[in-house]
Amino acid sequence: MDILRQRSAGRVEPGAVAADAAKAIERCRELAQITDVAGETTRTFLSSAMRHCMETVRSWMEAAGMQVWVDAVGNLRGLYSGDRPDAARLVIGSHFDTVPNAGAFDGVLGVMMGLALIELLEGERLPFAVELVAFSEEEGVRYRLPFIGSRALVGRIDDELLARQDAEGIAVERALREFGFDPAALASAELSADASAYLEFHIEQGPVLESKDMSLGVVDAIAGQTRGEMTFVGSANHAGTTPMHLRYDAVAAVAQWIGEVERVALTAPGLVATVGRIVASPGAGNVIAGEARASLDVRHADDTVRASAVSEIVDLAHSIAHKRSLKAEWHVQMEQQAVVMDARLTRLVEESIRDTGVEPLRMVSGAGHDAMIIAERLPAAMIFLRSPGGLSHHPDEAVRQEDVANALAAGVHFLRKFDEMVTRANA
Amino acid sequence: MDILRQRSAGRVEPGAVAADAAKAIERCRELAQITDVAGETTRTFLSSAMRHCMETVRSWMEAAGMQVWVDAVGNLRGLYSGDRPDAARLVIGSHFDTVPNAGAFDGVLGVMMGLALIELLEGERLPFAVELVAFSEEEGVRYRLPFIGSRALVGRIDDELLARQDAEGIAVERALREFGFDPAALASAELSADASAYLEFHIEQGPVLESKDMSLGVVDAIAGQTRGEMTFVGSANHAGTTPMHLRYDAVAAVAQWIGEVERVALTAPGLVATVGRIVASPGAGNVIAGEARASLDVRHADDTVRASAVSEIVDLAHSIAHKRSLKAEWHVQMEQQAVVMDARLTRLVEESIRDTGVEPLRMVSGAGHDAMIIAERLPAAMIFLRSPGGLSHHPDEAVRQEDVANALAAGVHFLRKFDEMVTRANA
Repeated sequence: MDILRQRSAGRVEPGAVAADAAKAIERCRELAQITDVAGETTRTFLSSAMRHCMETVRSWMEAAGMQVWVDAVGNLRGLYSGDRPDAARLVIGSHFDTVPNAGAFDGVLGVMMGLALIELLEGERLPFAVELVAFSEEEGVRYRLPFIGSRALVGRIDDELLARQDAEGIAVERALREFGFDPAALASAELSADASAYLEFHIEQGPVLESKDMSLGVVDAIAGQTRGEMTFVGSANHAGTTPMHLRYDAVAAVAQWIGEVERVALTAPGLVATVGRIVASPGAGNVIAGEARASLDVRHADDTVRASAVSEIVDLAHSIAHKRSLKAEWHVQMEQQAVVMDARLTRLVEESIRDTGVEPLRMVSGAGHDAMIIAERLPAAMIFLRSPGGLSHHPDEAVRQEDVANALAAGVHFLRKFDEMVTRANA
Repeated sequence: MDILRQRSAGRVEPGAVAADAAKAIERCRELAQITDVAGETTRTFLSSAMRHCMETVRSWMEAAGMQVWVDAVGNLRGLYSGDRPDAARLVIGSHFDTVPNAGAFDGVLGVMMGLALIELLEGERLPFAVELVAFSEEEGVRYRLPFIGSRALVGRIDDELLARQDAEGIAVERALREFGFDPAALASAELSADASAYLEFHIEQGPVLESKDMSLGVVDAIAGQTRGEMTFVGSANHAGTTPMHLRYDAVAAVAQWIGEVERVALTAPGLVATVGRIVASPGAGNVIAGEARASLDVRHADDTVRASAVSEIVDLAHSIAHKRSLKAEWHVQMEQQAVVMDARLTRLVEESIRDTGVEPLRMVSGAGHDAMIIAERLPAAMIFLRSPGGLSHHPDEAVRQEDVANALAAGVHFLRKFDEMVTRANA
């Protein structure tokens, strides 16, 4: 197709990019075959499957007219230069590592969407350059720390991170060297000075779009998170010989508290609070538990809403424990602030989607994304594609071709609008 | 002391048997040193520590004028014969195996109390014989099946039990042979035809007597038990991207149900219901649990009360699951009927305690005891001694010397009353 002609011809119909959407999906499925573990899709940071995947994607990027390199942390980067040497640079990216036994689309689809958009240009040069980044690490699997790829672009890889070891005791620094990278050259991976905006396409990884029968979402903000562990300490005792009124039952206390966690989460729109892990000790059916530990995960786009919910939930634990003559102990493991996407860029994305005839849903991302890291340096925006069944991090993870076509058409509109914005800025 | 003189002199003051009580406690502490695992008290069925313990207790029993043998299942038995060849036989017993890392008194104290009572007779012969039994297995540790010792006395050791294997694959039958017993001779271990009643002293293993500031209890019944596992099945999902109203959270469901378990248990006096084990899957802090499994243990002296509570609790699980669009599955693992102690013998025990100047508490045993098994064949009764801190199955398990003295004095009174009962029956 001829983007220039389309440009003068007005709206890009999703139907016109159906074949491109199908190709993007097909490529995701092809890459899903490249795995560290036979029979599933598992690609972790700096594994041999990642190298293989990198070579495959590199060849596609080069064929699309990009100048391709791998940076010092293993991110695959391709530059599609603009029509002038001093052109501004739009960065489009997502990751191509996966969780263990993953689906085919989380991260990878975002890279394939960026590639498809550049292919749609058919060599046409724009008044800005487009850099496509396939981040080498986002899921946090190998080093139990996510976003290593995008951290490198904003200069946030420090010595502590380099010294971090995987399950086999191999430090990040050693892994980089063994893969052929120079850890001393990490600064060269940072965003270039002409980078002016970041766009990421990603599957929603949740059920919201599907539940509203909508195709695409525009991310307002990435929710802040509090994660920690609540411990109730009572007294282990015999389940047969201890009457109900003489018990200090940690399981009964934690159960009451979990009910309150759910109740508090329902008090504020957009608030989510989850207890996903629970352990009772000693953990025998005929022994009253003397201790119960439960994880807590609270997220919201507004940090004050989150902080106030966490505070209420922790107070409730103490009050439940007090009434039962138990003790409650709260241990925070992670506090992560919400990251707001760039308002102007997000509006541009929203208009681009509307221009395709699709009404986008403004939404908050409950999951972290590379965009959250890049937003430290660049105005960032994200487009979500509906996740059938809300499924993600699962082999059955899917995407609908019509949604990919809608997103591609919106992407073309976005390139036009960004063009106008850059042109206005240059004028 | 001279029981005959005491007999004519009326009440046996606990103070008069203080030294005997101290000696019984000291013997328990001495036997606690005989262990399979250095540094703790652990004696399991047919272990070398059990053999050593057996030899020690045998020497004490013989010194008290008893004819001692070890039966075909390893129970140590001593007969203190009566004043006539056709005398009825009172059986006094408890077990001398232990749980891992046990205290010194669970089971063992009951054997030492019986021994002390016989020693208090100082050779005096009664119109009935007294058989003291130290059961070789009650805790169910080695074969995950309790009461092997007392089962032998009522003829309830079948081929299935003999074929049962321990963690090392050694069947009961092989273990018996290797210890020097003949599994074909098991019938010889059964209660003799002249056995006419069973009395067991045992620590309460619970906090009730202490909470009421009482020394001794008389057991009305041993509670029936239902044990099983409740499973809630929902959908695992992302804790960040799944709004509260689109969740099928198995932990939230199980927590609500545990609240109902506690509420139902409080509706009937004496009812206890416990969730001691809980497992959420996949069990990650940032993943909504798709499955939660919880143990349930319900006990009551009245089987209809227990059955109706279990039925209500199971119904509540289904209704909670239904409202949340989850599934609940109930799997029964054990159903054990309540065992009522013999009313006449129990009254005799109660009067014997009152005669010492102590008011006994009528109570239900929430734990199983050898008396529960022997009650199939003989009128049985049990005396509970207060458990400081309600502690049992723990190295800090204790007993107060004054309570042991009270129980010993009550035991002497019981022998007198039993004497009268037998004499009346013989007349």
